[in-house]
Amino acid sequence: MNKVKPLILVSNDDGYRAKGINELIGVLKEFGDVVAVAPHTGRSGKGCAITSETPVKYWVVRNEPGLQIYACTGTPCDCVKIAFDSVLERRPALVVGGINHGDNSAVNAHYSGTMGVVFEGCMKGVPSVAFSLCSHAEDADFSASLPYIRKIVSEVLDKGLPTGSCLNVNFPDAPSYAGVRVCHQANGCWQNEWAAHTHPNGGKWYWLTGSFVVSDTDAFADRVALNENYVAITPLKIDLTDYELLREMRGWGL
Amino acid sequence: MNKVKPLILVSNDDGYRAKGINELIGVLKEFGDVVAVAPHTGRSGKGCAITSETPVKYWVVRNEPGLQIYACTGTPCDCVKIAFDSVLERRPALVVGGINHGDNSAVNAHYSGTMGVVFEGCMKGVPSVAFSLCSHAEDADFSASLPYIRKIVSEVLDKGLPTGSCLNVNFPDAPSYAGVRVCHQANGCWQNEWAAHTHPNGGKWYWLTGSFVVSDTDAFADRVALNENYVAITPLKIDLTDYELLREMRGWGL
Repeated sequence: MNKVKPLILVSNDDGYRAKGINELIGVLKEFGDVVAVAPHTGRSGKGCAITSETPVKYWVVRNEPGLQIYACTGTPCDCVKIAFDSVLERRPALVVGGINHGDNSAVNAHYSGTMGVVFEGCMKGVPSVAFSLCSHAEDADFSASLPYIRKIVSEVLDKGLPTGSCLNVNFPDAPSYAGVRVCHQANGCWQNEWAAHTHPNGGKWYWLTGSFVVSDTDAFADRVALNENYVAITPLKIDLTDYELLREMRGWGL
Repeated sequence: MNKVKPLILVSNDDGYRAKGINELIGVLKEFGDVVAVAPHTGRSGKGCAITSETPVKYWVVRNEPGLQIYACTGTPCDCVKIAFDSVLERRPALVVGGINHGDNSAVNAHYSGTMGVVFEGCMKGVPSVAFSLCSHAEDADFSASLPYIRKIVSEVLDKGLPTGSCLNVNFPDAPSYAGVRVCHQANGCWQNEWAAHTHPNGGKWYWLTGSFVVSDTDAFADRVALNENYVAITPLKIDLTDYELLREMRGWGL
């Protein structure tokens, strides 16, 4: 019997050379043929940005049986778009983003290029999952996350995901975890976000920094679960509509 | 009686010189003191991107009683973040994005820098509204939209919006409209997204282009309402959680 292996598309926002995406590819190869189309260099914090004012290009950096890796000059969303349009020879069974070097829980899902990958995969109608580790270190230790990634990928390949929904999975920066919680996006906000410094020739410039203050105390809020050393799996959807406010506003007489 | 006027923060993704933001400022000045902090040049399609790897700066380009305009080298989200952190002397009553030169309905809300402005304002806990016109023309005619903007701004200043919710308002490109519909985000997807061209020195580069195919037929889907010449007001929220899938996944035994 000659069963066709599932095709898995991978991307990230740290670039194709990052440790996280390469560890992820190692796991995904167990499940099928893997094609990675990832930024040629870091694209952190790019959210769902797309490149409309310059052209982009991509090129192969690795080609072996069951694995092709391409570098692309575009954003994480661009990488997924160009993969579907120009690179992939068949429709993928799964789109995976990560493993991101850094936390993408709570509202950070909005800023995350890794989530950009996954929202784009989701918009294309393919089950899509983001994996992120709460460490920005270049040589971060992803080993505790790998068995959980294996389990989640296996479940999603088996069960699928509803059209328009995707998963945002975050791992604590720890050598082992307390378990898994299926979570909601935590409430919270960034504070003291800019650090001023003076240019050598004068004039103030500002670095984006700040601290994230969680206002949620629910154990099933993703950022809270991470603080308690749980893997946080947060199902997200691309339909942003607030249906409750929609019903209320129909009474506004606009 | 010396009533303090409400403070309104404005930004966009087309840059502070764009016709759309200047028309918007003209309307908003009727309601309060206006501060604009907007990109110094076009930042279309930047979504919720933030600038983490280079510093940004801003400078005043206009300063008169009741109106200050600042240009900023950052993304639309950065502009709102730096406004709250470093520019505004008091908390705004309203954050407004636009008027965008181009449609931000349906899934385009994810890619839109104008929606980046409004999501960021919403994350800061301030009622936030995006306005977009379905025309990319630099000299687009915004005149039909202005009475509707006046009405919506007045309602939102009066009634507020629930914390975590914001409005995405899109106007047809027409000299007058059939009316207003309070809508949900339309389903649809982009197709044939890349146009290849050959660099003068060889090698293929790709321009992002494509056509948006609406798969929704509901008259209250925002892109459908626009096609029927209605103003589409779509309430959105920053909590992306899919609560239905969350409940289902708790039975997955992860």
